[in-house]
Amino acid sequence: MPNPGVPSATVGRLVTYLRLLTELEEEGTRTTSSDELATRAHVSAFQVRKDLAYFGRFGTRGAGYTVATLRRELRRILGLTRPWTVAIVGMGRLGQALADYPNFDLYDFRLRAAFDADPAKAGLHAGGLVIEPIEALADRVAELGVDMAFLTVPASSAQVAADALVAAGVRGILNFAPAVLDVPETVHVEPIDFLAGLKRLAYQMVRPGDDDAAVG
Amino acid sequence: MPNPGVPSATVGRLVTYLRLLTELEEEGTRTTSSDELATRAHVSAFQVRKDLAYFGRFGTRGAGYTVATLRRELRRILGLTRPWTVAIVGMGRLGQALADYPNFDLYDFRLRAAFDADPAKAGLHAGGLVIEPIEALADRVAELGVDMAFLTVPASSAQVAADALVAAGVRGILNFAPAVLDVPETVHVEPIDFLAGLKRLAYQMVRPGDDDAAVG
Repeated sequence: MPNPGVPSATVGRLVTYLRLLTELEEEGTRTTSSDELATRAHVSAFQVRKDLAYFGRFGTRGAGYTVATLRRELRRILGLTRPWTVAIVGMGRLGQALADYPNFDLYDFRLRAAFDADPAKAGLHAGGLVIEPIEALADRVAELGVDMAFLTVPASSAQVAADALVAAGVRGILNFAPAVLDVPETVHVEPIDFLAGLKRLAYQMVRPGDDDAAVG
Repeated sequence: MPNPGVPSATVGRLVTYLRLLTELEEEGTRTTSSDELATRAHVSAFQVRKDLAYFGRFGTRGAGYTVATLRRELRRILGLTRPWTVAIVGMGRLGQALADYPNFDLYDFRLRAAFDADPAKAGLHAGGLVIEPIEALADRVAELGVDMAFLTVPASSAQVAADALVAAGVRGILNFAPAVLDVPETVHVEPIDFLAGLKRLAYQMVRPGDDDAAVG
């Protein structure tokens, strides 16, 4: 069901709704409403209903949503009904922070490998991983079936590292380097740029009310 | 000039265009075009013109854009004509990685303070900063005129830390904790959630062509 009109802001909010539904389920809550989700996500109830409407009809008028059902539907929509195998490329402090980051496994993201171009780092431990030399990347990606990678190398090395990942068969890259990556159309790149985050924040601060509501 | 219709994806792309214009200027390029910016940003030329059109008319039909002028205009639009003072709250590995992150100063973001709730960390060095106890936050934020903060504490501490920042007068938070923050309307929160990044990536991988083009 490709849906060419879905804005990226909607996808971001669906991810938030899914986290909120998981929290509700852990709290033992069985049913919820667009009002409750909206309050917790800091958006309007209209926005919640509009975001969900891209993907069909959920819930019952007056009765709201069954938490377990809506959570399952959102997992399906977001492609989270299968586990994804993840690697880190670039084991500086940021790569190490990601290796230590809790909870990836809870959400079916399996962090399985970490690579660095510095031979001195090979063999060191980071989180539950042992750092491997970058030369091992192609073989290990194939062996482990790595689907996506955190790219945490300096901007000057980002394209070379991305090329190696793409050649090895990785189809998704979470790019922390402040560089636009040149990848084939079949490979997806999601940028996470701290400096860009500060700039978006500066924009909001000088132009309050100007931007879409960010979901925190 | 508040512009209530500007999508957050446009703001994200303006940040990318600004980085590309800075690169062009460093390369000694004097003029550019929506085609060139589009190619470098991996979006369509129509998208570039549409994004800029929210803020007025730039460039000359046939002659394109003067790099220096468009760069100055984008800096103005994005609120980057003044320096912003930034602090880090939470000096785990991620906070330390941010303290080490290069180039904030190049873009007029001045990283000036780092706080942690663990008394054992007070006095330790991270990047060019000395870690301060969280109890010093209110006084130091006022003294330094901190405008925005990286919030890199665990999700369970995020709201308490955000409350302290807001009470101290910070108006912008780049939130790395996977938690929705409850802040007054005058405070802006920009979420950076690695897990959400992976989920957006998974969504793109199961539904190619579905999402807005991400700018890398």
